[in-house]
Amino acid sequence: MIMKKQVALGIDIGGTNTTFGFIDREGNYLADGNIETQKHEDINDYLKELYLEIEKVLDPLREEIEMIGIGIGAPNGNYYKGSIEFAPNLRWHDVIPLCDMMKEYYPTLPIYLTNDANAAAIGEMIYGGAKGMKNFIMVTLGTGLGSGFVANGELVYGHDGFAGELGHIIVSPNGRQCGCGRQGCLETYVSATGVKRTAYKMMAKYNYPSELRTIPFNEMTAKIVAEAAEKGDMIAINTFKYTGKMLGEALANAIAITSPEAIFLFGGLAKAGNLLFEPTKDHMEMNLLKIYSNKVKLLPSQLDKNAAIYGAAALVWKELNK
Amino acid sequence: MIMKKQVALGIDIGGTNTTFGFIDREGNYLADGNIETQKHEDINDYLKELYLEIEKVLDPLREEIEMIGIGIGAPNGNYYKGSIEFAPNLRWHDVIPLCDMMKEYYPTLPIYLTNDANAAAIGEMIYGGAKGMKNFIMVTLGTGLGSGFVANGELVYGHDGFAGELGHIIVSPNGRQCGCGRQGCLETYVSATGVKRTAYKMMAKYNYPSELRTIPFNEMTAKIVAEAAEKGDMIAINTFKYTGKMLGEALANAIAITSPEAIFLFGGLAKAGNLLFEPTKDHMEMNLLKIYSNKVKLLPSQLDKNAAIYGAAALVWKELNK
Repeated sequence: MIMKKQVALGIDIGGTNTTFGFIDREGNYLADGNIETQKHEDINDYLKELYLEIEKVLDPLREEIEMIGIGIGAPNGNYYKGSIEFAPNLRWHDVIPLCDMMKEYYPTLPIYLTNDANAAAIGEMIYGGAKGMKNFIMVTLGTGLGSGFVANGELVYGHDGFAGELGHIIVSPNGRQCGCGRQGCLETYVSATGVKRTAYKMMAKYNYPSELRTIPFNEMTAKIVAEAAEKGDMIAINTFKYTGKMLGEALANAIAITSPEAIFLFGGLAKAGNLLFEPTKDHMEMNLLKIYSNKVKLLPSQLDKNAAIYGAAALVWKELNK
Repeated sequence: MIMKKQVALGIDIGGTNTTFGFIDREGNYLADGNIETQKHEDINDYLKELYLEIEKVLDPLREEIEMIGIGIGAPNGNYYKGSIEFAPNLRWHDVIPLCDMMKEYYPTLPIYLTNDANAAAIGEMIYGGAKGMKNFIMVTLGTGLGSGFVANGELVYGHDGFAGELGHIIVSPNGRQCGCGRQGCLETYVSATGVKRTAYKMMAKYNYPSELRTIPFNEMTAKIVAEAAEKGDMIAINTFKYTGKMLGEALANAIAITSPEAIFLFGGLAKAGNLLFEPTKDHMEMNLLKIYSNKVKLLPSQLDKNAAIYGAAALVWKELNK
């Protein structure tokens, strides 16, 4: 009789894509797949497609692996209730009892859910650059801005399971309209979408010639802006400077609250490297209370991809070890 | 042989006064005293006066009580190192190894130190309104604004022991000058000093007649403003509305980070009651992300006085139980 390898299924529900992977206790990544998050208006259709895709990826591996639990990272995910509630960047705006709904497909497996950024923080802590750290902040930069706070070695879920919404601290009263219905949230400035918006602000402000001026808003991406910046485009460079200023100021305030050892940046925008890290670090230090000066490391995530999947899977191992 | 009652000495070093008290394990308050914090330029002279005052209060009780430890709450207090570091509201601006210096007077006793607001949070948790709460924020309103964050039932000290400086998040870039050397810190708006400053801002802005217009800046206090507001003075009323707006907005951002069950307000300014609580609650709710709406209790501290002394003493019991 062959012993099957035990794996956790980690699922990351992002604003654009839902990705998943099978990961064993040691952190080996066995197989993965993905579907579009926004394709289906009805959550039931979405879950059915997700299930079928998981089964498809699982099919050739059934003899080798045994799924022992499912961990899910989702925007506005509630750890205590296993639900997604009022997620501004998803098509389902109410309270979605996702763990209960997944149970219909996987009735015998334990299913856990948390905020996608909290899951990424757990991934960083178990498998990434935050190994051994007791106090750190994970910032995930995607369509929006997510965050996970770890204090005293534990993830801060808060009283209701919704802690860690750094993307929705208001940094500019009466500022940019946010998907959450309010104005001036950090993620309207610091995120892929924020960079895109800022590029047009800079085009309005400055007269520098720029290749970005040939691109309509609806076709612009943060990646296009980053590539232009690498080539010396002043509109693009100023866009990243402004983005780093907004992020650095917000991080300085977050540091005053939790005083972390390090802050990790994860996601597409974090790959812009020094374009983002330099102005962020400068403005973070410039705005820090003296006692925190030159103490807090600003680091790229050590999980080069799928931190949230690792985190969601790590959630399973952590819960099963309790 | 008579069994002496075991007590902890709790010391609260405030911007104006240093108060202390002897408290037993059950929370009974046995005796107290105080000295001025700012009288001595030399920390050694301050410690000598403090020691003599403690001995004076202790003297008639020596047959009854046994001091088993000392807990200290101090501005910019470092829990890990037992030091006060760069405290903006004290006369000693460097790194003061306070626990080590106290050891010269009390060589046989264990001595613990933390941020004065962290100490207040522990006091609220052990003896006050936060009993049984795992996630809450304590805000202390005095000369400055201090805070203590409790997450997962533990005080958030952060990597370096300096977490919880909500008073020094920057809420208004290029705003009011702060004692910390920066501009726009929350405590320049929300504190006894902040209320005083705002009263003059309101006199400059509005034409309402007001008894406050007869009082020079150097003689104004938050108490005078509160009493005028109670009598319907429009300058004073607008001062508290503005203070509540600034506090409410900052609390909404803090909630997005730690999602607490409750926020406790403690200190002289908190005694202004609805004058402060109503606008604070209104602006807090107005600025909250939907998922947090009407969930977070805004409460007055249940320790009507000396929360920080209780907290400092509770720190001793907590450490000795480890």
